[in-house]
Amino acid sequence: MKPLKVALLGCGVVGSQVIRLMHEQAGDLAARVGAPLELAGVAVRRLGRKRDVDVDPALLTTDAEALVTRDDVDIVIEVIGGIEPARSLIVSALSRGKSVVTANKALLAADGATLHEAARTGRGDLYFEASVAGAIPLLRPLRESLAGDHVKRVLGIVNGTTNYILDKMDSTGASFTDALEEAQTLGYAEADPTADVEGFDAAAKAAILAGLAFHSRVRAEEVHREGITDITATDVASAKAMGYVIKLLAICARSDDGRSFGVRVHPAMIPRSHPLAGVREAYNAVFVEAESAGQLMFYGKGAGGAPTASAVLGDLVAVGRNRLAGTRGPEESTYADLAVHPMGDTVTRCHVALDVADKPGVLARVAELFAKHDVSIQTVRQEGHGDDAQLVIVTHRATDAALTATMEGLRELDIVRAVASVMRVEGDE
Amino acid sequence: MKPLKVALLGCGVVGSQVIRLMHEQAGDLAARVGAPLELAGVAVRRLGRKRDVDVDPALLTTDAEALVTRDDVDIVIEVIGGIEPARSLIVSALSRGKSVVTANKALLAADGATLHEAARTGRGDLYFEASVAGAIPLLRPLRESLAGDHVKRVLGIVNGTTNYILDKMDSTGASFTDALEEAQTLGYAEADPTADVEGFDAAAKAAILAGLAFHSRVRAEEVHREGITDITATDVASAKAMGYVIKLLAICARSDDGRSFGVRVHPAMIPRSHPLAGVREAYNAVFVEAESAGQLMFYGKGAGGAPTASAVLGDLVAVGRNRLAGTRGPEESTYADLAVHPMGDTVTRCHVALDVADKPGVLARVAELFAKHDVSIQTVRQEGHGDDAQLVIVTHRATDAALTATMEGLRELDIVRAVASVMRVEGDE
Repeated sequence: MKPLKVALLGCGVVGSQVIRLMHEQAGDLAARVGAPLELAGVAVRRLGRKRDVDVDPALLTTDAEALVTRDDVDIVIEVIGGIEPARSLIVSALSRGKSVVTANKALLAADGATLHEAARTGRGDLYFEASVAGAIPLLRPLRESLAGDHVKRVLGIVNGTTNYILDKMDSTGASFTDALEEAQTLGYAEADPTADVEGFDAAAKAAILAGLAFHSRVRAEEVHREGITDITATDVASAKAMGYVIKLLAICARSDDGRSFGVRVHPAMIPRSHPLAGVREAYNAVFVEAESAGQLMFYGKGAGGAPTASAVLGDLVAVGRNRLAGTRGPEESTYADLAVHPMGDTVTRCHVALDVADKPGVLARVAELFAKHDVSIQTVRQEGHGDDAQLVIVTHRATDAALTATMEGLRELDIVRAVASVMRVEGDE
Repeated sequence: MKPLKVALLGCGVVGSQVIRLMHEQAGDLAARVGAPLELAGVAVRRLGRKRDVDVDPALLTTDAEALVTRDDVDIVIEVIGGIEPARSLIVSALSRGKSVVTANKALLAADGATLHEAARTGRGDLYFEASVAGAIPLLRPLRESLAGDHVKRVLGIVNGTTNYILDKMDSTGASFTDALEEAQTLGYAEADPTADVEGFDAAAKAAILAGLAFHSRVRAEEVHREGITDITATDVASAKAMGYVIKLLAICARSDDGRSFGVRVHPAMIPRSHPLAGVREAYNAVFVEAESAGQLMFYGKGAGGAPTASAVLGDLVAVGRNRLAGTRGPEESTYADLAVHPMGDTVTRCHVALDVADKPGVLARVAELFAKHDVSIQTVRQEGHGDDAQLVIVTHRATDAALTATMEGLRELDIVRAVASVMRVEGDE
């Protein structure tokens, strides 16, 4: 059987695992695809660098463009990340009818349209399971297993770095800075942690998830995004005292009328009894709520060389089979073309801690303000007294716009010394 | 666009939901498949019966064979269950080149080979996501997402009825009989609960899972099967006292040398900290352990009309797309052709409670017997004294044969009055 030739772009943490596994599992992969997979070349930035895997030096090249356009290459695996040159290389490959497997969430979320269009015109496959939640089979279930269902909500922990940091803060009482430093030491966070801690990585994944769940096109810039850098040890401790844990969540949810949806990434308090509360260290977990299926949960390793390579190789087998059968996998599905509604229209709940003057009528004034904005209060608890009096309020569900307006109003009330903390509450409706 | 014509076999709990959803989501399904899906006919046992869904009486027929062989039928959905006439009808359809979506675990596990062979020769698709774990996307991830990985173990709760019963026994202290009765009242257990409580249903699912995980053919009769009917409130309480919970598990695991695998269904004690311990009521959850991906977990509703229909419709969209593209999904993969090893070769651990005479040297005699069978003891605890003395022992890992021989030896020891309970321990190695 004629082998399928595979070009690999990138030989870092993921790429080196892809090479190792393609070699070690060559027999199994050939049996599952129906033909041997042969590494045609590996595009790298520098030829001489030491690598984590044995690779024939003759396969290495710095000319990625020449590699992806080679006539004998059938499939291109892109694991270099970033927007350029990844986009140009993928488009080059797809427009020549090659199939592409990519783990590039940033590119898919920034400009997926260009990639899908190139796949459509070139008649190649574009697979990207590894782009969200690493080894966890999540995109294929959304795209195929749930194709006969109506997805209402996707809610999950899709960034391992921030989950590691928040988990450490929760379990040891560490500050954000200390927890981040530990994550960096252990290799869970990069030297420049911005993409993770500011929520950019999770936002890109949320855009991809929302697009698949709602059959619409979503770009990263449409995702409401808040990171975790402002979360203090006090926030974590006070959440803990109330039976909550703080997680960075990606949430994609249809509006009640089903005509639009919201996509957002922000820290939120979830009850400790919620299954996502038990997701420790750098693990990922995603809830999917569909009309007929009900609640589903997917859990596993969201990052790392081998787990990501597992997802890449699963896609490689799929596109390999498709090429041998002369067919293609499911195309991008955007027929529903729903709008992303603004964050203000999102319905959520809020936990707020207020430092207040301890005098009669304070609660009445505060309650009046909530009522003015049509935000109903679920629980209120007064802590301390005198100068240290604090009101801790959890609201019922309201639009984010109403909640935001309420918080602004509270800041202007003379009896409120400070709004000590504000955080959304999810997962217990 | 010419519609794809769908024949439905069975109009019970699942079939009626399939009809409802095909009707309610007709627009979405057409957009996702690429052509409208049209119900060509519904085979039922009795025409006049009242149904849970509005269905055009002109579509109903008692002649299932005539329906599946109609020239205009493209896809057959089989949700009648059981071996015959389901097998003959599916083979008739497949051998005529039609595609089949089935939820029939019993048939797949008893004689999947015949069905897959018919699909291969007829060039139609055979999809069966709904046969295991209802709405949870599990078979497609195993078959496709993990196609580039090396699955080592699948361990899960795949029968909702027994999980409901064991959960009630655990949370309320109820006896098996009372918990079963409650499950029957609530519709979680059937009037004749044999298939569930004796583990036949879980064993069929285990056979399907093992076949996919290890790329080999597995029949239900090769699955070691023990039910939950002998579990007493005392077993549950003593497991609880030791920090364990009893669950009916389906376990498919490769041997250490990778050349064979075991498939078994039996009750086992798992630590309360294990994620499967938290699976309540009639929910299902399955752990998959793969070499590169690590541990993955899938959780959701394992049964019920709408959840099962969700899985059926997902498959319906997939086979519909395939027909329009003139292609087929992945065929049965049995290239590895590994053998199922006997239960005695399975490596597991054991919890045993012994009523013993309270005299010096008892523990030494018991320990000697374990040593004779090469079974090493992890913990031993003595409870009570005098005539009520009980030794509670948890072993380290050993073959099931050695553990069984040890238990037989214990029953013959004069100082052992009775072996009060024996149960395997899983999930904490």
